[in-house]
Amino acid sequence: MGPHPAVADVRRAVRLSLADLEPGDLVLAACSGGADSLALAAGLAFAAPRAGLRAGLLTVDHGLQSGSARQAAEVAGLPLGLDPVEVLTVTVGTSGGPENAAREARYAALSEAAGRLGAAAVLLGHTRDDQAETVLLRLARGSGTRSLAGMPARTGIYRRPLLELGRGTTVAACAALGLVPWEDPHNLDGRYARVRVRTRLLPALEDELGPGVAEALARTAGLCRDDADALDAWAEEAYGRAVAGERDPAAGERDPAAGDRGPAAGDCALSDIPKGVALAVPVLEGLPAAVRRRVLRRAAITAGAPPGALSAWHILQVERLVTAWRGQRSVGVPGGIGAVRRCGTLIFVADPPRGDDGDPDSRPLP
Amino acid sequence: MGPHPAVADVRRAVRLSLADLEPGDLVLAACSGGADSLALAAGLAFAAPRAGLRAGLLTVDHGLQSGSARQAAEVAGLPLGLDPVEVLTVTVGTSGGPENAAREARYAALSEAAGRLGAAAVLLGHTRDDQAETVLLRLARGSGTRSLAGMPARTGIYRRPLLELGRGTTVAACAALGLVPWEDPHNLDGRYARVRVRTRLLPALEDELGPGVAEALARTAGLCRDDADALDAWAEEAYGRAVAGERDPAAGERDPAAGDRGPAAGDCALSDIPKGVALAVPVLEGLPAAVRRRVLRRAAITAGAPPGALSAWHILQVERLVTAWRGQRSVGVPGGIGAVRRCGTLIFVADPPRGDDGDPDSRPLP
Repeated sequence: MGPHPAVADVRRAVRLSLADLEPGDLVLAACSGGADSLALAAGLAFAAPRAGLRAGLLTVDHGLQSGSARQAAEVAGLPLGLDPVEVLTVTVGTSGGPENAAREARYAALSEAAGRLGAAAVLLGHTRDDQAETVLLRLARGSGTRSLAGMPARTGIYRRPLLELGRGTTVAACAALGLVPWEDPHNLDGRYARVRVRTRLLPALEDELGPGVAEALARTAGLCRDDADALDAWAEEAYGRAVAGERDPAAGERDPAAGDRGPAAGDCALSDIPKGVALAVPVLEGLPAAVRRRVLRRAAITAGAPPGALSAWHILQVERLVTAWRGQRSVGVPGGIGAVRRCGTLIFVADPPRGDDGDPDSRPLP
Repeated sequence: MGPHPAVADVRRAVRLSLADLEPGDLVLAACSGGADSLALAAGLAFAAPRAGLRAGLLTVDHGLQSGSARQAAEVAGLPLGLDPVEVLTVTVGTSGGPENAAREARYAALSEAAGRLGAAAVLLGHTRDDQAETVLLRLARGSGTRSLAGMPARTGIYRRPLLELGRGTTVAACAALGLVPWEDPHNLDGRYARVRVRTRLLPALEDELGPGVAEALARTAGLCRDDADALDAWAEEAYGRAVAGERDPAAGERDPAAGDRGPAAGDCALSDIPKGVALAVPVLEGLPAAVRRRVLRRAAITAGAPPGALSAWHILQVERLVTAWRGQRSVGVPGGIGAVRRCGTLIFVADPPRGDDGDPDSRPLP
């Protein structure tokens, strides 16, 4: 008799996620003691030795509730056959809200431990249901394709083997293995947006639109991920072309958008172009909006704009220097960066020229 | 004193949507008598003469409830100053469910009337709230980027000037103009998925995640639209390259994926390639998954597969002939179409070769 189907599903998912590792590599399961990460840790304990891998466990004590140290010790003491096993005690700050602060502290501790122990991979227990919650949370913020792509199956050393499985599978796997999951009280605390999504919104969606909403949201995430990957590849290639064309002296003269209100192309000299991340306007003009905006975003970040502060609105304002050029002055983006257009070149500079410096390019419009 | 801000918003949105039309062109507002399309019709009556355009109104009697003819006549009799005004009486079938059948009958009637009257554009009253409902409905089906893009501002003769405005604006505009909107009883009928989304799900999302969810969903739609447009442009270009390379006799020999289990490239002859929509495999191999799948979808539809029946799953199966080639037999797609791979070429054929015809390419795997 084989294992319970849910156990087999978890084991298979873990095995497939480890297929590229080398014999002797160390893999760590991040385990809170909840059903998802408990099933994951058990799956790793089964799959790793069969693939010639070493397997350990990390559990994080966030110190946010009384008894958290004891709970972490209980997870560390589970007889799963994993070695090494470590409890990582962290101090959670307040930056960016409680969920964000806890997540940052957790990942910092996991990454530190993985480095110290020489692990090739750290497995996370996120399931298809977590993915659906992520997509719904991001959707409500008006996010684009990359954001709707949700959590990737792999980022750096982190892997999410269970992303295709539902939470029901991990619960059933734990039950079949005689493992008793621990329910984190935070998972029922309605002050967290993710908890409200899980306990109220996804059930409401299923009630009103029929079953399968979580699967549909996860499927949407996968499609958006492929789309975002393709667009990022295109933007990467276009960024390279735009940067390569940056100092082409003929670029300004060829610029069809300068029109009669922009600076005369003939007045352009290379010395007019301030130092910074420079992109050839003709290259930007030839791109679809979705790709052009990605190129502009990448250039702004390269110039020093903090990614978290750089909004779609900022990029749209910069884009007008390409698509609605009438000789505007510089456009500011976060991080003290300014975008200016000179001689058929769009430049992101750390210290943008003032609008009143007498340059015809930066005079206010009449 | 200027007009009420909501009235000004509607008028401005209508004016901008008409900017490309020629003096003397006829524009028709499709009006049910609800707040959205009533505000739209009033906005058109104001904006059209100022742009030198003629403006009329169409209202559809779906005949689905008693009194519908009287209601349509009331809308047609509104003193908005539009001319021509027509009541279009339609017969709603049952194909694809009641909402779908009513929509198909409505658009058929609107298109017929627009053609008969020589209209340059038909305006539809969809707002940002309708867009949010559309995105949420499609999301729950596991749709990709194009689907999440929602309703476009323009498709053929149809234009949606109010897509950036909330329903609150159209309600306020009607009130300010002394127009009394008619509430279609169907808009409160919980048997319709869209009604459940409007009356229950969007309010639940606002309750749990904070205000602004409708705006966020509409913003997501806009971002997805730009992304989908860029990917479609890439796929269009790649389709052209793949088709152009179709009969290149060297394609089979260069095919790096054929491996030792595929047919020997040297055995390939042009006569082996069945007639159909043919794509060069090396071109397909060089594309990101998101673009390759769009190219395959387009080829399948060109070969005769019905778009509505062609799922992402079918395309993934066909894609394996490119990315996981081991000499498989043909892959069926809806409409009696089959995809086969021969000599470095992927061909969509209306009458696919049988798997047992002795061709080494289509033998089952050992």
